[in-house]
Amino acid sequence: MGRIVQKYGGSSVADAESIKRVARRVARARSEGHDVIIVISAMGDTTDELMDLALQVSPKPKSRELDMLLTTGERQSAALLAMALSDIGVDAASYTGSQAGVITTPTHGNARIIDITPGRVEKALEEGKVAIVAGFQGVAQTTKDVTTLGRGASDTTAVALAAALGAEYCEIYSDVDGVYTADPRIVKSARQIHRISYEDMMEMAAAGAKILHLRCVEYARRENVRVHVRSSFTDKPGTWVISQEELKETDMEEAIITGVAHDRGEAKITVVGVPDKVGNAATIFRAVAEADINIDMVVQNISDLSVEKTDISFTLPSSEGRKAVEAIERVKEQVGFESIRYDDQIGKVSVVGVGMRSHPGVTATFFTALAQAGVNLQMISTSEIRISVIVADGEVDDAVRAAHTAFGLDAETDATVYAGTGR
Amino acid sequence: MGRIVQKYGGSSVADAESIKRVARRVARARSEGHDVIIVISAMGDTTDELMDLALQVSPKPKSRELDMLLTTGERQSAALLAMALSDIGVDAASYTGSQAGVITTPTHGNARIIDITPGRVEKALEEGKVAIVAGFQGVAQTTKDVTTLGRGASDTTAVALAAALGAEYCEIYSDVDGVYTADPRIVKSARQIHRISYEDMMEMAAAGAKILHLRCVEYARRENVRVHVRSSFTDKPGTWVISQEELKETDMEEAIITGVAHDRGEAKITVVGVPDKVGNAATIFRAVAEADINIDMVVQNISDLSVEKTDISFTLPSSEGRKAVEAIERVKEQVGFESIRYDDQIGKVSVVGVGMRSHPGVTATFFTALAQAGVNLQMISTSEIRISVIVADGEVDDAVRAAHTAFGLDAETDATVYAGTGR
Repeated sequence: MGRIVQKYGGSSVADAESIKRVARRVARARSEGHDVIIVISAMGDTTDELMDLALQVSPKPKSRELDMLLTTGERQSAALLAMALSDIGVDAASYTGSQAGVITTPTHGNARIIDITPGRVEKALEEGKVAIVAGFQGVAQTTKDVTTLGRGASDTTAVALAAALGAEYCEIYSDVDGVYTADPRIVKSARQIHRISYEDMMEMAAAGAKILHLRCVEYARRENVRVHVRSSFTDKPGTWVISQEELKETDMEEAIITGVAHDRGEAKITVVGVPDKVGNAATIFRAVAEADINIDMVVQNISDLSVEKTDISFTLPSSEGRKAVEAIERVKEQVGFESIRYDDQIGKVSVVGVGMRSHPGVTATFFTALAQAGVNLQMISTSEIRISVIVADGEVDDAVRAAHTAFGLDAETDATVYAGTGR
Repeated sequence: MGRIVQKYGGSSVADAESIKRVARRVARARSEGHDVIIVISAMGDTTDELMDLALQVSPKPKSRELDMLLTTGERQSAALLAMALSDIGVDAASYTGSQAGVITTPTHGNARIIDITPGRVEKALEEGKVAIVAGFQGVAQTTKDVTTLGRGASDTTAVALAAALGAEYCEIYSDVDGVYTADPRIVKSARQIHRISYEDMMEMAAAGAKILHLRCVEYARRENVRVHVRSSFTDKPGTWVISQEELKETDMEEAIITGVAHDRGEAKITVVGVPDKVGNAATIFRAVAEADINIDMVVQNISDLSVEKTDISFTLPSSEGRKAVEAIERVKEQVGFESIRYDDQIGKVSVVGVGMRSHPGVTATFFTALAQAGVNLQMISTSEIRISVIVADGEVDDAVRAAHTAFGLDAETDATVYAGTGR
């Protein structure tokens, strides 16, 4: 049998007992004949605790030093897992991101992997060892400084290593047992998705399904790495994220809609009364971009033709709200807009599915279902395989349920197996 | 002004407030015109907590992984200090031992520095930065694995960096304000020593004075690095550890005895009834050495000439006691000894001073003082500038006080400034 990569999230290694449990699972994979590479997150709340410590020392911690600090969390769990494995007779060695050859851009806090040179990991595997790699981190090609890949990016480390090492597949373990057609806490009849295409998973991730990091799915798609999302607390199979080609081989009938995702983490900013002249929208969005804020949906309404003014609305992570408002205030004089409205009592509801390409009635079905549920649409955005709407926060649950039913996703029995809350 | 190295121990960086206090002290040294290199220990009890975690995961943690785990403590405090410095306008960057070029032997848990290649630290200094180096750690020249230099060895990192970087001197900060003629908790009239030679400091360290790591003093002596041991809680001068030549320039009259040290961390093992034949002692001590245990004092008594058997006694760190007894049990049949006696209710009391070379009466004075104090000697060992005796644990304090008085070390007023307990 070949190589596999297993990635364990923070909830799977929250304490000494959990680490021993993970060690037994790794030992089993090893005894089944696999060469095993482990990617590991920091224990439980370690990263948050280290961040708190940093903020106690400095209100704006230097990003280079923050990376030095935060990366110690994964190094600790990696070393502890290696000890636990040795203790049950499985030879193992832990490696920092740098030692494992995770080469990145020099952007501290949000570096991107540009190369993997896993010579030491290869050597460990050849020596019959389990190689344990600290996730979430790498080393900058130019500065040789320690970098981090952004929160939750241990998934990306795992997929990148799976690609570089030619692994058969990459298992992503967490406290959630797979991807569902909707959040089972909202939709009791949500079903687990057994197989999903990279494309649908990317849209689900972008639309708020927190089960896999978007960048990780992009990487898996580009390198064609088969990903198995599953729970470290059960032996049940989870959700396979695979190519559309492989999906078609097994699933004869293509669903129109794969799932319904929602996201309560966004806020809406409306710049009111923007003079309708060339370059004003660009000035506003440049100001936001320069503050390093990613925006999501954008809508421009010409609210009053006679006065030649327009409103520009967009959504963004609500954690960035204050920063964005400040950035836009700084160009108020230049643009000449009237005011800024900020609303974080909103939610985004999306239906996702490659099947909608060949089914033109999807938008109509979605909007009819929302109307019948009494949900009021504030913004709409679509991609080839996704339709997203912004609704009031209090209407998110109703909207998700209505869409789930309208597209025939309801299971005959209620979902009861959902173990956690995503990451 | 030139370069200085400052080393801060765990008690000086126990929490966010302490780290900010250290940052202000570093900023002051910087503003006085020094190029500053900082070597830092892990925060407060971090190392002990990580060790506890390791033992929860594995009763015998693999030493390579223990080094990966424990080194994260210094990396955290180094990064936090860099943040705190940046926050008060002092440009700083933290480096792991490996990044700072601390090259070691591959012996995990007790590596030795074999080279320092501080290219990145030099570059940081040239850029006007304060360079902060994680103490206690390095990278093995052969395996490229992370190593540790043994507990308390951040002092050694500091002195080694001071030598490699040509620093004017090396300040070792802790919660203790210098070296005393005896432990002020035992001897109320103990005096602070303002200047001490490397040789005396080495003997004091070997004899149990925990203020400086023995290996650090050896390194300082070899590289002729001037060391200033002082408290991070006051601005008072501490104790300068310097060469005998420099010492003689300032101190006109040489004291016979520099200080009285004691050590309660040892245990005594007696191998009873060893057949008096060539090679038996070697077999026993080889068994102990192979278990990687350093022994201290050794005494062999021929207890019964008629049966040609002897007792062999030696002392060792009591933490190694169990391991040593097990190692000796394994050669019982080969050697043919009768039994092993183990006693950790002992203490070592030593008088130290280069002055004793030219004063033949020191041993007599010492033993007379002990006899008058009613202290019973179990073992005796001497070097050119030290006399050590093993006594019952309950008699250690009396022995220290008697020696301190006998050699005229008592101050006219009692010591009141001793701030802490050593490290």
